[in-house]
Order: sequence, then C-alpha cells, then structure tokens
Amino acid sequence: MGQEGAQKRGPSTLPTSTAPNGGARSARSLLRGGAGNRQIHKTLNNIKITILCGLVTILVLRGTIGFGSLSSDNELENQAMIEETNRILAEIRSDKDPDDPEDNQNQPTINLNDTYTLGAKISNWDEERSLWLSRNQDFPNTVNGKARILLVTGSQPTPCDNAIGDHYLLKSIKNKIDYCRIHGIEIAYNMAHLDKELSGYWAKLPLIRRLMLSHPEVEWIWWMDSDALFTDMVFELPLSKYKDHNMVIHGYPDLLFNQKSWIALNTGSFLFRNCQWSLDLLDDWAPMGPRGPVREEAGKILTANLKGRPAFEADDQSALIYLLVTKTEWMSKVFVENSYFLHGYWAGLVDRYEEMMEKYHPGLGDERWPFVTHFVGCKPCGSYGDYPVQRCLSSMERAFNFADNQVLKLYGFRHRGLLSPKIKRIRNETATPLQYVDQFDIRHSAQETSN
Amino acid sequence: MGQEGAQKRGPSTLPTSTAPNGGARSARSLLRGGAGNRQIHKTLNNIKITILCGLVTILVLRGTIGFGSLSSDNELENQAMIEETNRILAEIRSDKDPDDPEDNQNQPTINLNDTYTLGAKISNWDEERSLWLSRNQDFPNTVNGKARILLVTGSQPTPCDNAIGDHYLLKSIKNKIDYCRIHGIEIAYNMAHLDKELSGYWAKLPLIRRLMLSHPEVEWIWWMDSDALFTDMVFELPLSKYKDHNMVIHGYPDLLFNQKSWIALNTGSFLFRNCQWSLDLLDDWAPMGPRGPVREEAGKILTANLKGRPAFEADDQSALIYLLVTKTEWMSKVFVENSYFLHGYWAGLVDRYEEMMEKYHPGLGDERWPFVTHFVGCKPCGSYGDYPVQRCLSSMERAFNFADNQVLKLYGFRHRGLLSPKIKRIRNETATPLQYVDQFDIRHSAQETSN
Repeated sequence: MGQEGAQKRGPSTLPTSTAPNGGARSARSLLRGGAGNRQIHKTLNNIKITILCGLVTILVLRGTIGFGSLSSDNELENQAMIEETNRILAEIRSDKDPDDPEDNQNQPTINLNDTYTLGAKISNWDEERSLWLSRNQDFPNTVNGKARILLVTGSQPTPCDNAIGDHYLLKSIKNKIDYCRIHGIEIAYNMAHLDKELSGYWAKLPLIRRLMLSHPEVEWIWWMDSDALFTDMVFELPLSKYKDHNMVIHGYPDLLFNQKSWIALNTGSFLFRNCQWSLDLLDDWAPMGPRGPVREEAGKILTANLKGRPAFEADDQSALIYLLVTKTEWMSKVFVENSYFLHGYWAGLVDRYEEMMEKYHPGLGDERWPFVTHFVGCKPCGSYGDYPVQRCLSSMERAFNFADNQVLKLYGFRHRGLLSPKIKRIRNETATPLQYVDQFDIRHSAQETSN
Repeated sequence: MGQEGAQKRGPSTLPTSTAPNGGARSARSLLRGGAGNRQIHKTLNNIKITILCGLVTILVLRGTIGFGSLSSDNELENQAMIEETNRILAEIRSDKDPDDPEDNQNQPTINLNDTYTLGAKISNWDEERSLWLSRNQDFPNTVNGKARILLVTGSQPTPCDNAIGDHYLLKSIKNKIDYCRIHGIEIAYNMAHLDKELSGYWAKLPLIRRLMLSHPEVEWIWWMDSDALFTDMVFELPLSKYKDHNMVIHGYPDLLFNQKSWIALNTGSFLFRNCQWSLDLLDDWAPMGPRGPVREEAGKILTANLKGRPAFEADDQSALIYLLVTKTEWMSKVFVENSYFLHGYWAGLVDRYEEMMEKYHPGLGDERWPFVTHFVGCKPCGSYGDYPVQRCLSSMERAFNFADNQVLKLYGFRHRGLLSPKIKRIRNETATPLQYVDQFDIRHSAQETSN
C-alpha cells in the first residue's frame, strides 16, 4: 500500500543560522565606515534572512509535496496511481445527476403522522403465489425435496472507507458461496439502494420485499449480514421445526419479553417465509426507518423503552424488538431460535476454535461448533468500529480459515494455522480419489443423515 | 480514505523577515554607543534569526507529522487505524512457519529433465466416474436437463497491493453470482495455492484437476479469470455444439495454426469436460509451469516459437498454444470458439455499451452484445497494469453496471448511468408484481427458447 511512504517522512533539516564567512567580513569592514555602512549592514542582514527563509521554504516544499529528487520514480508512479485512483473513486462516490430532482432534495418529505409503506399494498399474495406455482411447475418451491431458500446479503456499491474492508467482504462472500454450494441454496448479493429513505441497516427491508415479490419460487428469504460468516459447513437449518412459522430469528424470549432488552433478538441473520404475513410484518416494521427526523424521533422512543439501548437513531433491530413486544400478536408466527447459533456473537467464540477442533466436530451448530460467527461491531468496511482493529481482523481471519478448513477437507488440504492463508496437504495424492468423495463430501453425509 | 489529507497540504507560510520595530530601535540606540553596542546588536540579530528558525521549524513539524492542533483527533485516529491495519496485513502476508521445511526452500528441486506431473497418474477416470454416477443417482451430472457446470474462479488469499483491487474482485464475484444464479451454475471461488510450484496464472491447472476428481457429478469445469465479467446475462453456452469435444476455448484457428500467435487463444475463460482426456491434457500442459529455472527456460522457448510474444517466463496461455500447435493430435477434441465472446477483449467493447443498449438486446453474446468482457492487462489487484488506471477502473465500472442493469430489470430498476452506483426505477410499484416476473425473469425466457 504505497500511501504510507509520503506520510512517514520526518521533519526537513533546517540550515544553520551561520551566514557565509565572506559576507560577514565584508559587512564588518563596511560598518567601520560609518552611517552609510550601517545602512549597507542592515541591507545585508535582510538579504541573509531572506536567503535563509528561501532555503527553508524550499525544504518545506520538498518535505510536503515531494518536489525534487527525494522521491524515486517508483514512489512518484505509485503516488500518481494512488491520486488517480482516489480521483476516480471520488468521481464515482459523488455521482450526482443535476437533472434528477431526487438528488436536489435536502429534506425528506415524510410527514411524521404518515404511515410509511414499502410499496403498493398487496393483500392476496398467498393466493397469487400459490396460483403462480401451480402454473409454473418448472419453478417449484422445493429443491431436492427441501424448501427453496434464497440467501440475501450485500454491501455498499462504493469502495470501503477502510481498504481492508473490501478484502473481508470478498472473503465473507466466498464463505457464503461455499456453504450455499454445499447446501443447494441460491445467493443474491445486493449492492444497490432500492429506497433512499430506508438507508443503512434499514435497506434490507425494501430489498427483502422486492425479492419476495420477484421470486415466487423462493420459499424462504434468508437475510445475512456481510459481517457474518458460516463456521459450521455441515449444519443445516432444521426447517421442519418452522413449518408453522413465518419468521425465524436468533434471540432469547426472556430478554425479549421480560427485560425488553435492545439485544434480545439479532437481525444479522434471520429468515422470512415468502408469504402475505411477511409482507404485512415488513410494512409494520418499516415506519421507524425513514432517515432524518422520523428515524431520529423513533430512536428516542426506542431508547426510552428498550433496556440498555444507547441514544441514537432508530435501527432495524431495536425497531423489530419494540414492534414484537408491543404488538405481541405477531409472535404466534415468529420462532425465536437459540438452540443453535443462527447468529453467534463472535467475541465468545473466536478464541475457542482450536479447542472445538480438538473436542468436537462440524454439524452441531451450537456453542460447541457455532453455525454462524457474527462480527457485530467490527465494521471493517467503515472508518470506526466498536472494537480494536487488530482484534477484529485477526478474529475474522481465524473464523474464515476455521470454516475454510471444512471446505478444503474434501480436496485434501487445510490451513497451516487459523491465521495462515497458506494450506498444506492432509492426505497423500491417490490414483483412486473417489473413495474420498464418498467419505468427505458433506452433501453425501447430509444425504445419509436424512435417509 | 483519510490518507489524502496529509499529502495535499501546501507549503507552510513563512514569517516575514521584518524584525519587530521595538527591537530595531533599541539596537540602533545601542549602536550609537559604539563597539559594545555592536556586540549587543550582533547578539540581537542572532536572537532574531534563532527565533525565526525556531518558528519555521515548528511550522515544518506541523506540516509533516501533524504535531500540534493542525491534525484533528479524527485524522490521528485514522492514521493509527491505518498503521494498525498495515501491521496486521504484513503479519498475515509474511506468514512463515519455521518448522515447515517447504518454507525454507529457496530453489525448486525440479530436474529440468523430469516430466512434471500434477499428481498420481490416473488412467481409468472415465470408467470410474461412470460407475460412480450410476451408483449415486442423487448426484446426477445434469441439472434440469442441462449438463452440470461448475464455474471456477479465484484470487490471492491476501489483500490486493492496490486497495481498489479487492473492491473490483468483490464486484466481479457478485457479477458471476448473478449470472450463475440465473443459469443454474455452481461456483467455486478459490483462494488457496494448491501447488507451490504452479503459482500465479499456472495455479488454475492443479485447481481444475483437483475439482474434477473431487466432483464427479460435474460434467464441465468452466475456468474464468477474476478480471472477466459477464456482460450478457441472457446468453447461454450452446453445449450441444460441444458434444464431441472436451475443451472449449475462445480463439482464432488462423492465428493459431498459420501464425502461431501467442494470443491465438485465451485462457481467461474456457471449459474442460470432466474426463480422462482432460486429465491427460492437463498433465501435458503442466511441465512448463514449475516456477524458477524451468519456467524461465520454457519462456525462452515460447518467445522463440510464438509470434509476437515478448520475453518473459512461461505463462499458461502461451504454453497451451505451443502444446496444441506442436502436438496437433490434441486438436480433435478442442473446440476453438469465436462465434460469440466466451472471452471478449475489453478495449474494443466498453465504449460501445450505450450503442449496444440502443440497437441490440441481451442474448446475442457476440460483438453486438458481448457474453464476457475480459479486462486483460488491467490488473486492479496488483501494483502495475498495462493500461492507465483511470481507463481500466472506469471501464470495469461501466461493464459491471451494463451487466447489473440486466439483472435489476426484473426488480424494476436500472443504474442512472454506466458510471453510477445509484439506481432509479424503470416502472412504477404495482399490486400485481407477478406479471413482471413472467415478463422479465430471464429464466422464463430461457425456458421458452428451449421449448
């Protein structure tokens, strides 16, 4: 990363204040000449000071903008490339369309008394969808006997503020690609803002709704944050538990109903059935989301009513908790799951991976071998996280490699250590590789389990 | 990206050379007093110069290291975070295991006279695979009547040298996820070096072999570079054309056999059937790959024999071309495809996207609407590409959005412009969304085409 070079230059060396000898001797002789000489002496002093300041100016210029021969060709080239890159990024980030009235709005036009809706009201989705499925037999809502799931995740369309952020977004999606390939799940990676008002963490609401309505063949929409990694590549969702429910979310009923804690549920990984009930819940959930005064005011209500909640604008998680504890009729179709880590808070898990590998095995999904490790608060894409950068980055690296080992096992490799990008063989090459396919392909084990 | 601030500071303002009036008057009176006064006057001058230099020193320090109140807390915090990140990156990148003899080898132990092999020799793969498929009916080599394809791509396990590189790797894999979801293709994203000797562009060979042997259910392995994007989301591979072939690669027979040009074929996007023939070709292809003297020497042979090839170590593409023109018996099963852009060289395509949108439509796959746009030579992940950075980045952004528009159409959106991350509606919200599913879901159109 070439940007470091320019920043780490030390202060420039200043020239000494000693005037050249020749100049001083001449001034002294002149002085002996009287008043006229005094004038010349003063003039020479001024010249000395001017030269001194001029030299210092040059050094300052060299120190700050690399003027002169201090920068090597490579550094200049790197510098030019970085500046060019930054210029393009700024252009992409600051995209403004002068003809688009939306870009010229500074204040949202949401009336605080309005009920915000995500789109045109739909009331017959179950019937419409059922009819569509019966007419489109080539697009069933099951795959190999299992309900069709669409995993949805995403990130901002512009480069991360912190360069390392994009690298971990990349590793995170690779991790999800691996899990989903093994388990026959489709992925939608979103990088577009569908609704200007529902920005940030609220953006998942219009996205989920849009995907439900555009993919009637999908039975479950599974939202998963970009900072959540699969760490149990064998574990499968026990969908039969949820046949009478429409939403599955990790949390604790006691924290939810008794304590009304703002972390009673976690919206970093949850499932919505594609049905009318879900569309209605989304509509009931959205009103605290529109950015600006609505979200600010809503934040105050949430802080006042939810235990432990700091003061900040309304977030989707707090809003959902508040919705469910105030309109408890929703709860009949919500499954609050904590028998496995549909969401697993990273801090208590990442240091135990070696112990897990020693004592347990994939497939458990719980505290012995967490299904999902979720890096809440790390925010590698942003400028400021809630935890030290080193702790977060090395922990994410460990989680990634812990999961990757489970994928590489089929191919005969594992990482040298949980912090290492390098891999090593765990078995010799063979002229009969199919024995290992039967033994190590996770899909085959899953097949045997269900038979 | 907070690094910009420190670099763009201008030269510090230097104080003027005028001494304070009070000091000058006192000096003059003293001078009238004679020689003793002259000494005092000189001393005062020295003090003036010292103060001046001291002030300038402080300004230089503030300008270069942010000493004092010029740097806000935010900048210092950013700086600390960047340094911490870089330290961790260096640690991850420089991972060395002192107990591993492999890490201590400086020279490869390949004998130039040996024939390099990718692994244990397998001679009965067709029979073994066929038997396995018959015993594992749950893992057929077809999906919805189409041959099962595994798209393989990947990138280095460590962060890119250029920060923007990871962002475009992320966009590139999202692009591939979209195409593969629409067309029922599985993805394997590789971030591991399976073979130390076959590094860099050669790494795809051991990877392809390993995946073939570990996934007998896969009929075609489709390698695609990370710098290649799908730009026709409708076009499907005409697999029936290849029923008698085992390799499909973009290229030009004239360039290949008559001119022996080093760019006659492109290994940035090609298909291998999962069969014995492919294993044998990989074995015949690999020997020029091992890094060090073998690859260097092989590079000289390739440069001497292939038209237009610059002098550099052996690359996989040149080696394949050389193999096919010298051992022409391989050609009976190689399909050199140029009726559509299985690989489309970006420079001649990216400026015509608007014209394409105006005149043509997705599904053509050729120069009118390229199937794949391949950013050969841009190398956004590395430090130095063959083209200006601005040209590459903005062109990749355009290609990405050109493709994304085709995906977003189902959801009712498109990008505001090909350089814009922002999207806008292309149709109004509706209470009857299923009409658009029938009309715009690409998979439904594909279904109709094949019926």
